[in-house]
Amino acid sequence: MTKPIILTGDRTTGPLHLGHYVGSLKSRLAFQDTHRQFLLLADMQALTDNAHDVGKVRDNVIEVALDYLAVGIDPERTSICLQSQLPALAELSMLYLNLVTVARLERNPTIKDEIRARGFGRDIPAGFLCHPASQAADITAFRATVVPVGEDQAPLIEQTNEIVRRVNALAGRELLQEAQAIIPRAGRLPGVDGRSKMSKSAGNAIPLSASPDDISAAVRAMFTDPDHLRVSDPGKVEGNVVFTYLDAFDDDRNAVEDLKARYRRGGLGDSSVKRRLENILQELIAPIRARRTELATDRDLVVDIIRRGTLKARDTTERTKCYVMEGLGLFQL
Amino acid sequence: MTKPIILTGDRTTGPLHLGHYVGSLKSRLAFQDTHRQFLLLADMQALTDNAHDVGKVRDNVIEVALDYLAVGIDPERTSICLQSQLPALAELSMLYLNLVTVARLERNPTIKDEIRARGFGRDIPAGFLCHPASQAADITAFRATVVPVGEDQAPLIEQTNEIVRRVNALAGRELLQEAQAIIPRAGRLPGVDGRSKMSKSAGNAIPLSASPDDISAAVRAMFTDPDHLRVSDPGKVEGNVVFTYLDAFDDDRNAVEDLKARYRRGGLGDSSVKRRLENILQELIAPIRARRTELATDRDLVVDIIRRGTLKARDTTERTKCYVMEGLGLFQL
Repeated sequence: MTKPIILTGDRTTGPLHLGHYVGSLKSRLAFQDTHRQFLLLADMQALTDNAHDVGKVRDNVIEVALDYLAVGIDPERTSICLQSQLPALAELSMLYLNLVTVARLERNPTIKDEIRARGFGRDIPAGFLCHPASQAADITAFRATVVPVGEDQAPLIEQTNEIVRRVNALAGRELLQEAQAIIPRAGRLPGVDGRSKMSKSAGNAIPLSASPDDISAAVRAMFTDPDHLRVSDPGKVEGNVVFTYLDAFDDDRNAVEDLKARYRRGGLGDSSVKRRLENILQELIAPIRARRTELATDRDLVVDIIRRGTLKARDTTERTKCYVMEGLGLFQL
Repeated sequence: MTKPIILTGDRTTGPLHLGHYVGSLKSRLAFQDTHRQFLLLADMQALTDNAHDVGKVRDNVIEVALDYLAVGIDPERTSICLQSQLPALAELSMLYLNLVTVARLERNPTIKDEIRARGFGRDIPAGFLCHPASQAADITAFRATVVPVGEDQAPLIEQTNEIVRRVNALAGRELLQEAQAIIPRAGRLPGVDGRSKMSKSAGNAIPLSASPDDISAAVRAMFTDPDHLRVSDPGKVEGNVVFTYLDAFDDDRNAVEDLKARYRRGGLGDSSVKRRLENILQELIAPIRARRTELATDRDLVVDIIRRGTLKARDTTERTKCYVMEGLGLFQL
């Protein structure tokens, strides 16, 4: 039996951080054994709201690829590929844009939220509004049936499947399969400030390439319980970023539950808990950073890995495009 | 000196008619001597509002190509090419969609008018709204600097040039040249009913493949002056379709002016003027129909002409795409 195809990826707008590690990279490592995995370096998607800064989008192609390889993505089992070098994705996007109305795109909750969050109003770039059709192109071009997404992204998969059904209805047979969204159990990792999800732009992220000092500083600055003034005071665990991180990164569940109980009772200082977390993060990041530093010295090797992954992806996506265009009944030369 | 590049084309939604002959085909014959000409069989654009009828869009690829060849388009001097087989057009479209806002697309007068005319409202297909970015992709991909358009299409060229300026500003140098719209002097040919421009969907068209009987019937039914009841009555020339057509197709200007004067005075019957027009149209269409009928027996030849034109077009458009993507600073593999 052939393995199911899984498509994930990242916009190339910045190096990845611990939020990515918990939310997606860890499960991608596991998917390497069970799925045929494509990792899309989504530079075209990044341009939908970064057209003014192509340099950032370009430079982070290598940074994200380095992060993938550093955490243990194996290019023999996962194809790392570059979106802008896959013409079939653009061709299917243009095709699918005819199968969805402007009103439907505007109703998409993910797009609506993002438009609000970015303060775009009607001055939203057209490419940003059209993104759901592009995502449908990505997913279907790779024939991915499994798509891990954050919970705020689930409506995008629903829209993909609407387009899939429309394509199949027009073709009069099942050209494309619907995709299934997988929402990771872990949920979003908050930033060190506890105010929102971890993100580079919010300045509350610990990148996977963080130095030992960066890690120390980030943990020291981490948001805990503002009412927990003396060690002897009872402390709150909920919303306390240090405990949220222990939940995410400490494999010794019993020890963490024990610490939580002591913290709640009073008598456990922030600095002790932070010391434990810092050790765990230092141990987690040290080998990633080491591999990343080593790989970064051989840029050609990384480019070659992306090139080979992109060629494999091109093969798959071109085939799907021809199949869809022919299946829909377009003129064939 | 190399010849300037000209791009024109037609949506493949129906065979061409006399309106196309007057409005564009005649001048395309002349451009063959002075320009490097690409004729785009715009099947992807046709899908922006015909996604429900891919069969119509497909079948008319050959019909439109037959019309081109029948009127005298010479595949050695004009590349007839198929839009859906030119990936660079989709890739540049997706890129340009990031350089234009939804609000700007909605303000485009051509799109606004068409949305109103088609009664789309907010249920407009996204591809239809995005068409101006695709047209910019077409024009720039071919490096066309001359684009003949109907007067209602001139705002599309303005939008293309806005995108060109945006690309050049982002690249910090002149990657692309602005295009110049050429609006044909002839203006739009009205339909035989005189109510609107000639179009197949309005049912008021004389196709280039019309039979002698079709032509007779169309001229007989042609709208003249409804108040010109008796031959001896004075008649109106303005809005009288028979005279509009004589202006468009009769090369003997003096004879036409003479007929107009007699008609205005009274004493010239509709049937005499119609007889003159019918003779002219029969003579014009007879050789076109004959060539068309002959060519239609050799479908493979026509497909091969489209294939060769598309290969030439692919060469040009792929080169432009790479140049633009590299020039804007995207990651190169």
